[in-house]
Amino acid sequence: MEKSRNLCWQEVAEKKRHDLAAKIPNDWKLPDSVLAEARHRSQLSGEFFDRLLDADTLKITELRVEALLDAVHNGSVTAVDVTRAFCKRTAFAHQLNNNLLDIMFDTAHARAVELDEYLEAHNKTVGPLHGLPVSLKDQFHVKGAETTMAYVGWIGTFEGQKATGKEGNINSELVGELYELGAIPIAKTSMPQTLWYAETNNNIIGPTMNPAAQRLSCGGSSGGQGALLALRGTPVGFGTDVGGSVSVPAAFNGVYSIKPSHGRISFRNAASSSPGQVIIPTVVGVMGESISSLRLTLRSLISLKPWTRDADVVNLPYREEELSAAATEVNLAFGLMKDDGIVRPHPPIARAIAMVSEALSEAGHQMIVWEPPSHKESGSIHAAFTNADGAADVFENLLLSGEPLIPELVPEFGDGPGTPMPLLEFYNQTLRLKRYRNEYEDYWESTAKATRSGGPVEAVILPIAPHAAVIPGTWIYYNYGTIANTMDYTTIIIPVTRADKTVDKFDDKYEPLNDVDERNWKAYDAELYDGAPASIQLLGRRLEEEKLLRVADVVVHALTQYKEKNQLATV
Amino acid sequence: MEKSRNLCWQEVAEKKRHDLAAKIPNDWKLPDSVLAEARHRSQLSGEFFDRLLDADTLKITELRVEALLDAVHNGSVTAVDVTRAFCKRTAFAHQLNNNLLDIMFDTAHARAVELDEYLEAHNKTVGPLHGLPVSLKDQFHVKGAETTMAYVGWIGTFEGQKATGKEGNINSELVGELYELGAIPIAKTSMPQTLWYAETNNNIIGPTMNPAAQRLSCGGSSGGQGALLALRGTPVGFGTDVGGSVSVPAAFNGVYSIKPSHGRISFRNAASSSPGQVIIPTVVGVMGESISSLRLTLRSLISLKPWTRDADVVNLPYREEELSAAATEVNLAFGLMKDDGIVRPHPPIARAIAMVSEALSEAGHQMIVWEPPSHKESGSIHAAFTNADGAADVFENLLLSGEPLIPELVPEFGDGPGTPMPLLEFYNQTLRLKRYRNEYEDYWESTAKATRSGGPVEAVILPIAPHAAVIPGTWIYYNYGTIANTMDYTTIIIPVTRADKTVDKFDDKYEPLNDVDERNWKAYDAELYDGAPASIQLLGRRLEEEKLLRVADVVVHALTQYKEKNQLATV
Repeated sequence: MEKSRNLCWQEVAEKKRHDLAAKIPNDWKLPDSVLAEARHRSQLSGEFFDRLLDADTLKITELRVEALLDAVHNGSVTAVDVTRAFCKRTAFAHQLNNNLLDIMFDTAHARAVELDEYLEAHNKTVGPLHGLPVSLKDQFHVKGAETTMAYVGWIGTFEGQKATGKEGNINSELVGELYELGAIPIAKTSMPQTLWYAETNNNIIGPTMNPAAQRLSCGGSSGGQGALLALRGTPVGFGTDVGGSVSVPAAFNGVYSIKPSHGRISFRNAASSSPGQVIIPTVVGVMGESISSLRLTLRSLISLKPWTRDADVVNLPYREEELSAAATEVNLAFGLMKDDGIVRPHPPIARAIAMVSEALSEAGHQMIVWEPPSHKESGSIHAAFTNADGAADVFENLLLSGEPLIPELVPEFGDGPGTPMPLLEFYNQTLRLKRYRNEYEDYWESTAKATRSGGPVEAVILPIAPHAAVIPGTWIYYNYGTIANTMDYTTIIIPVTRADKTVDKFDDKYEPLNDVDERNWKAYDAELYDGAPASIQLLGRRLEEEKLLRVADVVVHALTQYKEKNQLATV
Repeated sequence: MEKSRNLCWQEVAEKKRHDLAAKIPNDWKLPDSVLAEARHRSQLSGEFFDRLLDADTLKITELRVEALLDAVHNGSVTAVDVTRAFCKRTAFAHQLNNNLLDIMFDTAHARAVELDEYLEAHNKTVGPLHGLPVSLKDQFHVKGAETTMAYVGWIGTFEGQKATGKEGNINSELVGELYELGAIPIAKTSMPQTLWYAETNNNIIGPTMNPAAQRLSCGGSSGGQGALLALRGTPVGFGTDVGGSVSVPAAFNGVYSIKPSHGRISFRNAASSSPGQVIIPTVVGVMGESISSLRLTLRSLISLKPWTRDADVVNLPYREEELSAAATEVNLAFGLMKDDGIVRPHPPIARAIAMVSEALSEAGHQMIVWEPPSHKESGSIHAAFTNADGAADVFENLLLSGEPLIPELVPEFGDGPGTPMPLLEFYNQTLRLKRYRNEYEDYWESTAKATRSGGPVEAVILPIAPHAAVIPGTWIYYNYGTIANTMDYTTIIIPVTRADKTVDKFDDKYEPLNDVDERNWKAYDAELYDGAPASIQLLGRRLEEEKLLRVADVVVHALTQYKEKNQLATV
């Protein structure tokens, strides 16, 4: 019988795309003319996108998170209205930008109805995120939705297994917490097949590009999440990060993010690649429109005492007061790493770093040149762990459907799993990591000798990548991003500016430091990069999330003043 | 030339014993008649031992820690006097009980002189432990002393390597912190060769027995530490624990201990077995005369912000207030595990558990039967990690000198390293551990349904072993101890009573649960066990050290009242 025939992977993916498209109400389908026009534009976000939206939708979706929640909480707008507005915006965003792997508009509406009824009946909210639409990378399980982790073989299964009874029937711990706090998951965002790529492409829906400059990558692995936020499909979304996978797409899409240290946000009952590798662990990160939205989200999650729900979470309440005693807000000390001495960033990033440095200096803060233990060693240690298992699970997951690797990954993974690292070598790498972490921490402490406050620097300003949102396929150097994972540090992304071909010119007199630097330098193209978001990384120490968010406020404030004074555009 | 000949391992060990003996001043050498008398006694501690000491030494060394430190701080006794008294007592203890691997009386005296001078000059102490003599298991490096970790091949080396320049020249981070706080390391305590044994024997100084009952074991692996504390050579000492190695010798020697969760006390720059295995990590524990001495030590160490000195330490200040909001001190809820359903404890331990349970019930606290996920599974997971590397480093360390395994370990390790676990299997075991931890935590949370407070139980009362201080070679079941490591829980040992042949009779009608239970039951001998310390374990959740110390105060208080009421002897 025809219907029992096993579908080939292309057919399974085709059916998934069809099902996904069918979850967009007909009223929200964009006409072909708009889709055609969009394809020929460089930039989707901004005026073009906003023009597609009706006034009510635009009004609601443009509210800042605090104003939005206030409006729901005081009854001036319903959760149903808010949900409808963001779902519509997300539907438009996906049709133009191809950034979702599942859509939960129906369950979102149903939850919004419940929230409105609760508020009406009890005259109070269910929690601090009551009425906040959120999106999640397609590793988190949400009841009523599917998790593919970008594998064709996971379609119609629970993490690749058929008929478990769990399909569409499980909430990851984080998702349960979000519901409990009043948030409303509306969509699941795309990611690269395997997770091991810093751009976003898979055999289910194909590539996701950058809404700010469609010839550029949206980054990865939480790339669909970054792109959806750039179009404000939701104000806040969740990704995962083991080597920059939250920070990079936040930076490339011009939104804020916090990648906490391991143990602040639950990753229980969510899917992952190489889940048994916990030495450099995957962590959940929050991406959002502002530092305050990240703080609200993190504080709300931690208010639920997640350490009583997930053995991996550290028993650590949210600490409101967090700056070192010696420092005041007008006298903070920052480390400044313009480059790591191996690969220098392209002009847009160099300029973003310089802007932040000048802004902070002018605001009275102290900048100290950051010369830590080699980030090359960090990158080498990081690779030892992420490569240790020879990508065994990647090939198992491909085999489920017969889909091939995406072409971008063939040079990395070849045609089959590698030999796993022997355990004694794995132990030696663990000791190497431990030594490196202590050397880096010792260096951080040693900066106390150079600061006016007498304490070590509060945070470090550095690039997250040696370029802005990247020209696909030209990214060759990851060590700016992986340091936060090697060290299990907290890191925050702050959007600063955009690449500007009239300012960020190719420097043809530049003398490369080495071959890798030369390849990166030659990959800069002022014309192609024009309009790409350029962001900086604010690196903080382990489990200092609350403090780093406060430091980020200081940075954003200084940058805002600097832009006003110099009559520069806001991002 | 004779002097350049390589010594055989027996000669190296002999020379070490000779050097060790030479570090005891002649004035403090015990006469052969005393040594001979001691050999024939069952009990060393108590009256026999105290009689050997002069009045001044006895007076100082019998002070509780708080009174001792007060006396030093207010100048009524000098640090030099205190150090001399405890060094003398330690010298006597070692001569009778054979529990040290190195002696630092000279450096201790020098430091005491410095401390007295500082107090005189500045009219303040250098820190909260100013003048407190401490002892350390022979894994910690102390300048001026040697670290052997009980391997003959480490004698004259730094962790087995010759001519590194570090020999006797390095302080472990913990040791540096202790000096900074004003504590005075005076001796390094013995341990079993390899660390992988819960009694204490090695080829350097031979076995250490139990000062309370010399035919019984002092436990291990921090066994010399436990024995020294039983004779009050120091009031506080430090061990390490990956499977009960602090808790067991504390329990067997009738002293208190806290094994924190990983990340409270630094283990940086200290030696260990299988140091690359960090999934079930080795942690530093504190052993001492009282709960308050443990609290003072832990609080003092954490006051130095060890997370700025060791990347493995969690950024978590000492939290003074720590009991769940719902509970008051007269209404705590405890889990009670009389046995784990696999191996039932011998009569002395069953009686100790019953005493604590009755004492707490009579004091108004609630006891809930503890029926968690199987501790057999915990033991199996624990063994998977501790055995994963096939003891590769054990055989490397033996090879350094050619010494053989101690006979007790031959059944475990055979004649060479095992095959290390393949990495993918190691990853699977990691996931198994993660699942187990979450199931156990879920169970713990679920007890909220049964408590009067409405919150989960504060702590669990259970044995640490199915017997009191054990008859050497008869210990076959470790799962009571390893649960605290599998879960990375905090655990405290509280001495309760002593085995009493007139009360704790062999029950020849007992029907064993299984073969292991039968072997354990048959290994009970009321006559041999008579006088053995019998203690209980108070198990708390991860990183709840402060809270668990407060709960321990409640337990000790209830037990004291219970003993007074029932006219029972204090321990």
